[in-house]
Amino acid sequence: MSKKILHQITMNFCSNCGSSELSQVVPPGDNRFRLVCCRCGAIHYHNPKIIAGCLPLWEGKVLLCRRAIEPRRGFWNIPAGFMEVGETVEEAAIREVWEEAAAKVRLTGVHTIFTFTRFQHVYIQFLGELVGGEFGVGEESLESKLFCEEEIPWEEIAFESSAFALRRFFDDRRRGRAGGVHLGHV
Amino acid sequence: MSKKILHQITMNFCSNCGSSELSQVVPPGDNRFRLVCCRCGAIHYHNPKIIAGCLPLWEGKVLLCRRAIEPRRGFWNIPAGFMEVGETVEEAAIREVWEEAAAKVRLTGVHTIFTFTRFQHVYIQFLGELVGGEFGVGEESLESKLFCEEEIPWEEIAFESSAFALRRFFDDRRRGRAGGVHLGHV
Repeated sequence: MSKKILHQITMNFCSNCGSSELSQVVPPGDNRFRLVCCRCGAIHYHNPKIIAGCLPLWEGKVLLCRRAIEPRRGFWNIPAGFMEVGETVEEAAIREVWEEAAAKVRLTGVHTIFTFTRFQHVYIQFLGELVGGEFGVGEESLESKLFCEEEIPWEEIAFESSAFALRRFFDDRRRGRAGGVHLGHV
Repeated sequence: MSKKILHQITMNFCSNCGSSELSQVVPPGDNRFRLVCCRCGAIHYHNPKIIAGCLPLWEGKVLLCRRAIEPRRGFWNIPAGFMEVGETVEEAAIREVWEEAAAKVRLTGVHTIFTFTRFQHVYIQFLGELVGGEFGVGEESLESKLFCEEEIPWEEIAFESSAFALRRFFDDRRRGRAGGVHLGHV
């Protein structure tokens, strides 16, 4: 299942030897085109990145944040961000809720795994309980707010992954269903 | 929550401008040390990678493969491997079962999300049904075999993520529990 071209090339120079001679070849034993240095032979792999997030719940409402940064500045989103080296996925989700909504959250389960194949991102989103119902506004947010289902600003949701997670959450609740992970992609 | 040092540096030259002058600084607006080019200012992020896998089931048994490649050559493992750009997590898991066990699998749910914080890997492992009960030996395997619980070679399991997934699977089955995702890390 080889790919004719790499989806995204962000490398002008080999990070191993500094050469600018890089080409796309299928390395021996591999079945995909990779960015390979013609001088030192280093193979530069590109892999999808993880975005960890959590939908905080409080008294039947969900907590969303309005983004203060691009992309999608001004749009509402489930607190989420790039997982960092040295933390677990769960820690990343808890940290993001703290950074974006100044809120503590107790994770209650995995809710969605959503792949953006084109942007090479995988969202892992949890459900969580907002500890004490308290929240604020983090540095990367313009505003934070609890919404009931009827109040969700569907036209102003930042990313497809968040709209997907919100729809599945409300669907599950209506059906009295809980605990399953929803898989999605775009 | 800043980190004093990066966990792993694999870059000798800036991949943007080719300079060898890279240093660890906390960029403006960030709260962690990053590898930054002193010449062009490019910030080089390091993020965890996803390993997608699936535990194939057939008539109460689980399918494991004996690794033909390092690391852990000769040890038994749940079919899994690095997720590639352009595919979903589900597609990656199905592809890995095909590549390692020459088997088709129908995914039935997410089973574990396991973070190796030190190695910067996140395993996303599914459960799946082995289609038709048929399997072979893929290029990266020495052997493939169906095991019942009593036959599992616990001392010869390749990775902690696989031992975790197997233990949780058999525990769940004994308790008649199904559908929940198990979170683990090491």
